[in-house]
Amino acid sequence: MSHSIELISIGDEILQGQIVNTNAAFIADRLTQNGIPTARMTIVGDQCETILDAFKRAAGRAQAVIITGGLGPTPDDLTKPCLVEFFGDKLIFREDLLVKVKDRFAARGLEMPETSRNQAEFPAGAREIPNPNGTAVGIHYSRDGVEWFALPGIPMEMRAMVDDYVIPRLQELGLGQRVAIRVLRTTGIGESFLMQQMIRLTDAAMLVEVAFLPCVFGVDLKLTACGESPGDNERRLDQAEELLLPDLEPYFYARGSETLPEVVGRMARESGLRIAVAESCTGGLIAKWLTDMPGSSDFFERGVVCYSNESKIELLGIPRELIARHGAVSKEVAEAMAAGLLKRSRASLAVSVTGIAGPGGGTCEKPVGLTYLAVADHGGCEGFKFQFGQSRDANRKRAAAAALKLLFNHFKAGPLP
Amino acid sequence: MSHSIELISIGDEILQGQIVNTNAAFIADRLTQNGIPTARMTIVGDQCETILDAFKRAAGRAQAVIITGGLGPTPDDLTKPCLVEFFGDKLIFREDLLVKVKDRFAARGLEMPETSRNQAEFPAGAREIPNPNGTAVGIHYSRDGVEWFALPGIPMEMRAMVDDYVIPRLQELGLGQRVAIRVLRTTGIGESFLMQQMIRLTDAAMLVEVAFLPCVFGVDLKLTACGESPGDNERRLDQAEELLLPDLEPYFYARGSETLPEVVGRMARESGLRIAVAESCTGGLIAKWLTDMPGSSDFFERGVVCYSNESKIELLGIPRELIARHGAVSKEVAEAMAAGLLKRSRASLAVSVTGIAGPGGGTCEKPVGLTYLAVADHGGCEGFKFQFGQSRDANRKRAAAAALKLLFNHFKAGPLP
Repeated sequence: MSHSIELISIGDEILQGQIVNTNAAFIADRLTQNGIPTARMTIVGDQCETILDAFKRAAGRAQAVIITGGLGPTPDDLTKPCLVEFFGDKLIFREDLLVKVKDRFAARGLEMPETSRNQAEFPAGAREIPNPNGTAVGIHYSRDGVEWFALPGIPMEMRAMVDDYVIPRLQELGLGQRVAIRVLRTTGIGESFLMQQMIRLTDAAMLVEVAFLPCVFGVDLKLTACGESPGDNERRLDQAEELLLPDLEPYFYARGSETLPEVVGRMARESGLRIAVAESCTGGLIAKWLTDMPGSSDFFERGVVCYSNESKIELLGIPRELIARHGAVSKEVAEAMAAGLLKRSRASLAVSVTGIAGPGGGTCEKPVGLTYLAVADHGGCEGFKFQFGQSRDANRKRAAAAALKLLFNHFKAGPLP
Repeated sequence: MSHSIELISIGDEILQGQIVNTNAAFIADRLTQNGIPTARMTIVGDQCETILDAFKRAAGRAQAVIITGGLGPTPDDLTKPCLVEFFGDKLIFREDLLVKVKDRFAARGLEMPETSRNQAEFPAGAREIPNPNGTAVGIHYSRDGVEWFALPGIPMEMRAMVDDYVIPRLQELGLGQRVAIRVLRTTGIGESFLMQQMIRLTDAAMLVEVAFLPCVFGVDLKLTACGESPGDNERRLDQAEELLLPDLEPYFYARGSETLPEVVGRMARESGLRIAVAESCTGGLIAKWLTDMPGSSDFFERGVVCYSNESKIELLGIPRELIARHGAVSKEVAEAMAAGLLKRSRASLAVSVTGIAGPGGGTCEKPVGLTYLAVADHGGCEGFKFQFGQSRDANRKRAAAAALKLLFNHFKAGPLP
């Protein structure tokens, strides 16, 4: 079994369900992006017997093994002693490593605690994997045709070491195929309905692998090309994209890793427009997403979370009788919210949401999930109706994503007539 | 190795890092809560060879095996055929299951697609595990002293089947110890500083196991008692809590699973007060958290996200010269925000945040992470200074948690003098 990589995660906290094993997902994703398939993941606890058993199994199957966890200074950190025992190696005390550990503490104005002294012990027959973000040095063994990489379990430390050391070494060893990945991001349509619309999906699948990945903003399409050369991969991705884009068009918002709020923020900045947001059922989520990115004050003018009818009337100038006539969850009120906010703010574009997030508050006429959105600019105002589902959390996220989609569409189409 | 449970997750999407294996964490947590330790987790892809190998390894070690994934209707769903092959069993077509599958589609107004017909095939020698939320029935084998449970990978379906079927069966088999768990939730202090403060931690650790679990609102302490009887466990938990609470007191906000926003919402409802929120750097996060729970309109009056100076002046009536004199990030402006919002809303309690979330915008005098909060009621207004760290995302969350902590303290202490 060549080109077979195994991940071993060590830690009682994973086996007890106290933490989710995001480290394995991170490493597997990085390996996939470099065309290196992961064959197996194993998680064992902080006991020498099961750790050694996991090493033994992997040694008989894998070409490379990536271990995370168990490199800290406390007695339940067993990866280093287990590796040394497994390879018949020994630990030596390295003054140069001690200096580095002490320096790291000193940089934070602290003295090294005596318990951290063992961080300077290192296997005689292994190479160091530098850890720019912590005291635990990684361990690299090459034995019997298998590469072993042991990394700390702290995600921030582990991630840098995977990117800076492990992936380059695996590439040098000729592991990994020439793969190229492109992500096409869509919003406003569910996975199965999107799939149904993609009449040229089968044609595209002849060129690249297509995976559907739902995320909070919509559905991402991950295209993976695995061709003869980098040039061939790019050609395949371009051709697949050309086949797919016409069907995706109404939902497509970005290539790559840019999120929907980031795209909207970038378009607002490019067009010199500032956005204001009036939220009822989304309760601040749209504002939160738009201000997640640094520098959002360039385009985010203000937000109001008008949960009560009084706040809608006072903050946005909605006529009381409009709410009485149509109800707070109505197209009329959504439009009045967006138009009212635009008038009372210094924004050039306003978006509003009012809906029944649930689980309570629904009626036969206005069921849970019913949501109205509106967008207003100085040319006019337009409202839209959506019927989402039963889950409060999902309804709020879908409504917030729909609001961003409206802003995105507005930037693409230009001002309202 | 008795009382040894192994989890096997099946699916290429996990091995490729497309999804994080939250199923294994969920099951491990449920097992831990029932005093059943998980010995190992294995993740393999959608290939018969590696699935059968994983079954073989587990059969030689475990007392029970819980498998997730690979029970769907598509050709890459291999758990059912692999189990049948592994146990020398055969699949039989069950008309009664077909009726259930068809009924499930009919309930959604759909006809069963032909591809789902195989969901009615079931191993002759296994028992069904009912799936109240989907078409894939779970499979329970008892063979050679090992219990095998195969469940679908869709979290919502899997979770109900673990709680309703797997855990009760494991308890009937005498697996699991009499454990009792109590969670003490704290906010406003980091893990290591909290630990330092807990001078009676060692005494408590003689009675119960104490785990520190950081979460978005602060640090949770999970106490696990593993005594002679349920009564003994409760006694241990009570004694440990009595030892620990005095040190936790300034940070403690809840026992159990209630979140910080939920506690604040409950206290507001109980005291008949309505809350308004003025957010600058948190950008809507506090409002979002407070409106996450159903029925939040009872106590959440309104929120404003006043990113720009203009919006602070217009929405909250902050004097322009106050901002000019002290800067938008200052105790004076935070207090004016809370007091201004209180005056202009129908709330009886207002909280405000202004800070430099980063990564840009910091100066020597006002570095990234500097944040001011204030709380105002009709008796007065009080401001507070915080210095958080370098990460924008962490700073926003810590500021939002600090705002909720201020509201919590306010409810505990009563009105401002």
